[in-house]
Amino acid sequence: MVSSRPTAPWTYARSGVDVRARSKALAGFLSAVRYRPPPAHGRVLAAPGHFAGLIRIGRETIAITTDTVGTKVLLAERLARWEEVGEDLVGCNVNDLAALGARPAALVDTIVCGATDPEVFRAIGRGVDRGLRAARCALLGGETAVVPEIVRGFDLGGTAVGFFPRGRAPVTGARIRPGDRILGIPSSGVHANGFTLIRKLLEESAIDPRLPRPGATVAVGEELLRPTRIYSGVADALAGRPETHGLAHLSGGGVRNLVRLHPKVAFVLDAWPELPPLFRWLRSLGRLSAEEAFQTFNMGIGFVLVVDRAHFAETRRRAVRAGAPDLVEIGHVERGTGVSLPSLGVTYHGYS
Amino acid sequence: MVSSRPTAPWTYARSGVDVRARSKALAGFLSAVRYRPPPAHGRVLAAPGHFAGLIRIGRETIAITTDTVGTKVLLAERLARWEEVGEDLVGCNVNDLAALGARPAALVDTIVCGATDPEVFRAIGRGVDRGLRAARCALLGGETAVVPEIVRGFDLGGTAVGFFPRGRAPVTGARIRPGDRILGIPSSGVHANGFTLIRKLLEESAIDPRLPRPGATVAVGEELLRPTRIYSGVADALAGRPETHGLAHLSGGGVRNLVRLHPKVAFVLDAWPELPPLFRWLRSLGRLSAEEAFQTFNMGIGFVLVVDRAHFAETRRRAVRAGAPDLVEIGHVERGTGVSLPSLGVTYHGYS
Repeated sequence: MVSSRPTAPWTYARSGVDVRARSKALAGFLSAVRYRPPPAHGRVLAAPGHFAGLIRIGRETIAITTDTVGTKVLLAERLARWEEVGEDLVGCNVNDLAALGARPAALVDTIVCGATDPEVFRAIGRGVDRGLRAARCALLGGETAVVPEIVRGFDLGGTAVGFFPRGRAPVTGARIRPGDRILGIPSSGVHANGFTLIRKLLEESAIDPRLPRPGATVAVGEELLRPTRIYSGVADALAGRPETHGLAHLSGGGVRNLVRLHPKVAFVLDAWPELPPLFRWLRSLGRLSAEEAFQTFNMGIGFVLVVDRAHFAETRRRAVRAGAPDLVEIGHVERGTGVSLPSLGVTYHGYS
Repeated sequence: MVSSRPTAPWTYARSGVDVRARSKALAGFLSAVRYRPPPAHGRVLAAPGHFAGLIRIGRETIAITTDTVGTKVLLAERLARWEEVGEDLVGCNVNDLAALGARPAALVDTIVCGATDPEVFRAIGRGVDRGLRAARCALLGGETAVVPEIVRGFDLGGTAVGFFPRGRAPVTGARIRPGDRILGIPSSGVHANGFTLIRKLLEESAIDPRLPRPGATVAVGEELLRPTRIYSGVADALAGRPETHGLAHLSGGGVRNLVRLHPKVAFVLDAWPELPPLFRWLRSLGRLSAEEAFQTFNMGIGFVLVVDRAHFAETRRRAVRAGAPDLVEIGHVERGTGVSLPSLGVTYHGYS
């Protein structure tokens, strides 16, 4: 039925992101990497489910994570605005460090491009500078590869390295237990996830990103480009405290990222705040089911803290002082498994 | 004169790699990144001229470097051989750590591609595994981005993190002085540098990389793909010794990389070994001047040690035991500046 196609609901998979194919390829890659070095070269620590790796080097524990901005750069290119994705390059990496409670120390960037435009590079640099400032992180190097035969436009990525100040242990989520409260810190927008789907939605409805969506005053492209909020400050202020049981960065995978913190508790998100207008609009534009929307986008909450009930008020105060006055309670932990949004009838089991 | 074009000498710039344009863009980027974090987030240490950055985190000094395999992947694709470039992904990074005397601890990989082919991913994994084994380094994570709108084929990169075992300081080259001897460890081939030029040379002469070059028995593509030799073991064995004054990885920039070690001495390479046939062939294929060849390719020597004259024999023995029995003396340090190859009449001043 051809006539039904324009109203068929979109999914991330239908937009062309075949998560299953990628997982399969990645599994093949990882199955081939079997080598484990001797202890004199550092001791790898398990951080199951986390986006950052941990290694004990000498007398310090180091966290390392790497990520790219993905196809958000295509929108940046369309609008000739590069500062935002420069800032995202920092944000997508340091927020994954923050989810382990690591303090950011150093970032290296990778700019792979088809051509060098000094103005674009300068704008990306301004964004990177802003991100580093927000995260209190140093740029320690980088690589610029100009490979027109491989890359059209830009691919922006980076690797961040963090550490644990004396007396602080990584926050893995292992201490999460029923009764804990779940706090959320609002996102600044869609951050740098789901852009392959977003682009399809804009195309299908022939939306010009230089114009505002209904009800908005700024161009929708500008709204979509808003750089990733950086949660390093709040995470750094709370990570060293025993009542902080878990931290999560809601990037690709949305609220499903919580499952990664602890496989044997239920995260009940029964107080999710009203959806920001941009997310409501995206959902209706794509006829996205609640299930699809919440596992593709952050839906308004970019970072989550799971805290001991007894220290709830105190944690709140500390978070407010550390740069998150807009923190909200979004749920609690129960016996069970998975992540649920009861008012939407959605439950996720497993990470993907 | 059209007829003179086919015999005009090639240069790296003529092949399309505009180093000046890239430097200009990069300078714009770096001029915009001004932020310097407070000491509680780590203390950045200066390592002028080096490809790796250094930061003091808590009680350890950490070295970080990031690099990509570049356009060597295009030859890998043409020959459907992916193990070699997987190994290069490790080699190009750990060798830059080795040049500071850092011991490799962890690598994260970045695979940016247009499509996921499980067989290709598995082969890349096998190569990465071999590289990690040679470097004694752990894979601590990675990112796989499937972005067909941005990338055709594959871009392979990584970031490596190393450290300095107790009592060892970074080897920056600052202690190099006239009278020092210069030792070279042979490369395994062209490693992962200069491939944009190599591809043009093959195209111009309509050379099929699946066939051997004159005098060779294996396909020229196979010779060219040979993975980067990994120098981590030798560097690790020698870096902690006071007589080791400088270490250099001859990657992009060739012997010019030596200038980076010390601006106020002259590196006189008066005993460069006979060029391996592959390099002789490449040079004649492209009518490359000696100056161009030695600043684009490693020309047979992939890693350099600058050592105290008084401990020369001892260093040699240690290097042989640590995995470099083929080590050769290639020159010495004099008063002056720059890098020279007297028998070829070539002198370089400055890095680029």
